[in-house]
Amino acid sequence: MNIESLVVEKAMKAKQICTEFALISDADRKNILKYIANELREKSDYILLENQKDLSLAKEKGITEALLDRLKLNEERIFNISNSVEKVANLPSTLGDIKTMWKRPNGLMIGKMVVPLGVVAIIYEARPNVTVDAAALCIKSGNTVILRGGSEAINSNTALVNVIQNAIEKAGFSKEIVQFIDVTDRKAVDELMKLYQYIDVLIPRGGPSLINYTIENSRIPVIQTGAGNCHVYVDKDADINKALKIVENAKISRPSVCNAVETILVHNDIANEFLKKLYLLLNNKVEFRGCKKTLKILPQIKPATDKDWETEYLDYILAVKIVEDVEEAIKHINTYSSKHSEAIVTENYITIRKFLNEIDAAAVYVNASTRFTDGEEFGYGAEMGISTQKLHVRGPIGIEDLTTYKYVILGNGQVR
Amino acid sequence: MNIESLVVEKAMKAKQICTEFALISDADRKNILKYIANELREKSDYILLENQKDLSLAKEKGITEALLDRLKLNEERIFNISNSVEKVANLPSTLGDIKTMWKRPNGLMIGKMVVPLGVVAIIYEARPNVTVDAAALCIKSGNTVILRGGSEAINSNTALVNVIQNAIEKAGFSKEIVQFIDVTDRKAVDELMKLYQYIDVLIPRGGPSLINYTIENSRIPVIQTGAGNCHVYVDKDADINKALKIVENAKISRPSVCNAVETILVHNDIANEFLKKLYLLLNNKVEFRGCKKTLKILPQIKPATDKDWETEYLDYILAVKIVEDVEEAIKHINTYSSKHSEAIVTENYITIRKFLNEIDAAAVYVNASTRFTDGEEFGYGAEMGISTQKLHVRGPIGIEDLTTYKYVILGNGQVR
Repeated sequence: MNIESLVVEKAMKAKQICTEFALISDADRKNILKYIANELREKSDYILLENQKDLSLAKEKGITEALLDRLKLNEERIFNISNSVEKVANLPSTLGDIKTMWKRPNGLMIGKMVVPLGVVAIIYEARPNVTVDAAALCIKSGNTVILRGGSEAINSNTALVNVIQNAIEKAGFSKEIVQFIDVTDRKAVDELMKLYQYIDVLIPRGGPSLINYTIENSRIPVIQTGAGNCHVYVDKDADINKALKIVENAKISRPSVCNAVETILVHNDIANEFLKKLYLLLNNKVEFRGCKKTLKILPQIKPATDKDWETEYLDYILAVKIVEDVEEAIKHINTYSSKHSEAIVTENYITIRKFLNEIDAAAVYVNASTRFTDGEEFGYGAEMGISTQKLHVRGPIGIEDLTTYKYVILGNGQVR
Repeated sequence: MNIESLVVEKAMKAKQICTEFALISDADRKNILKYIANELREKSDYILLENQKDLSLAKEKGITEALLDRLKLNEERIFNISNSVEKVANLPSTLGDIKTMWKRPNGLMIGKMVVPLGVVAIIYEARPNVTVDAAALCIKSGNTVILRGGSEAINSNTALVNVIQNAIEKAGFSKEIVQFIDVTDRKAVDELMKLYQYIDVLIPRGGPSLINYTIENSRIPVIQTGAGNCHVYVDKDADINKALKIVENAKISRPSVCNAVETILVHNDIANEFLKKLYLLLNNKVEFRGCKKTLKILPQIKPATDKDWETEYLDYILAVKIVEDVEEAIKHINTYSSKHSEAIVTENYITIRKFLNEIDAAAVYVNASTRFTDGEEFGYGAEMGISTQKLHVRGPIGIEDLTTYKYVILGNGQVR
């Protein structure tokens, strides 16, 4: 069978069975997930063996250490993946709930019932844990799922999907609720992105080139999971100690993730004290790059250029700009931010109101680290990524965001 | 200036000012809309004169009566359009509301604040009233808007936009919150659909070819407003009189709209009585097309083919199929429906539960006409169209559906 027909067949199958799958009880969905969690632990030897193949091939190709680490599974990681499936299993489900129902003057009762989206497709890159996370979140939210992982992880992903599909059958359901595109050819992605008749939403999860490729080419509605050029604004009325802790945490607790801070904006009035203390705190771990005013306070650091303001370093680098007031900070953020996570540190009520109202981002923080933008931290359990678009979902994509609604309208013979 | 730069410039402008516009008060938005409503009435002579130009050109081209009627404005229609703007002005606004706020174990307070989408673009066809409706709904929901109407209505739309922009300036705001693409060349649409950096959502409003064109080509997230291949299932436990009234209303009150019924499914046990009565009621107005079993009861009607089951007639034609049970009805609907509006007529609780749970559509009705799928009828005031996709909004697109949210997170120095 050629690649196109293979992809079409899998997508058709996912669509065909999605209505029936949407109707099973949450107890059944929970049961499927518990079988998956168990099976992952029991078959860890097999999974690690297959993962080893990917790792060897990757080493031959001379892949970077960071990428190798992303690709690598071990007993502990499989245990954690399995745990995460159990956590998803135990999340409360809102499927079938009618969140609000109102009565019209003509007596019609109109309500919105929570239902699954239908078929969710995910295109992702090297990390094999995404295979399991995505499957678990889709199963819990009543969706059938089409998985398309990176070619470097093809053996690991095939093994994981085998384990998942076995577990689903053991639980008494059709393994076809989880479809896996086991073709590494890019053509498979191109074909997948055309199939809007069968697929309700496409979630790309990975680097900017993957995200842009789907935006440019997908005919299926996309939930964009984007970059994080995040800022912390330290106001003149900031508690300096809180500000130091927050910037330190937002920068160095995990610089490679999208919710880490890249640029800090500091109010002129406290810049001298704050920046000197910050430099002492982070100098040995972080490369500072400063605007002209910053260089007067910290002449030993590199100058920042316009390019710095728009860069998501994902590294131990911090850009620093001194601003005259909160207006300048807001303007800078709304110009350069990728609308992910933005924070202010201040004790001033008026300034807080202004910042909360005027910053356009998925998450706007007051006196807290940007690192909290995460499904788990928001109380959603696991997540499918962080949405930086405005349609449908913004911020962490949890199981509720993988649902839609249908109107149910109860009448007694009404006509118009 | 060439077409591409002109479109880019308008989209950039809409983006540039959308953050500021999002922050004005609802009192101000209301005021702008009241100015627009007034100005439309005061300038009706000018609008009608310009409309006359479009009508003359259309007649020269030998356009159909139906299309001419869509294009035509008169005093009464302008009065109704103006009234509709006032209605939108007076709708309650949820912008800035925080719908829910919860406290995490670490003390962080996390809430979801309602905010505008930003920049909304609408591509529509002949009806000039859409120009005003779309502008009013976007202004009320805090969005800047880019309008692109059909070439047949270019003079009417230019006049309406002039009136709207004048009114906005009289109210003391920038007329640039309403951008109008006054180029009829198709290139303008092609360019517009690429500008995802500036436009947050694209709503195509018109026939299937327009909708499909945007799905195939837009890089901006689209809210699909689609076709309505709607069904009414008359169950064995139906109240026959209610069923007759409902089918009559759903078919003939306005056959040209998307929420009109196209196929009815009738339970075998009551088919004889119901279909004979329905034929007497509608025979002189509607062309019946039946399945084989139907032809045994009504041998005088035309046979229906598979093509009929998938056709949205938008005309005085009704396809009829006799089914063995509710399962067969549900299966038929989930196969052929465009997921717009589907109804059941029955007094049986178990059958109702089954139908409500298993039908996949934007609106699922019990004992009421499908004709109620409409923003006004749902209590939303005006609407931007009926969404038949699952992402973001399903069914009538009201002002709340033109908003998104941002997380506001209040902390006291929390780090992760």
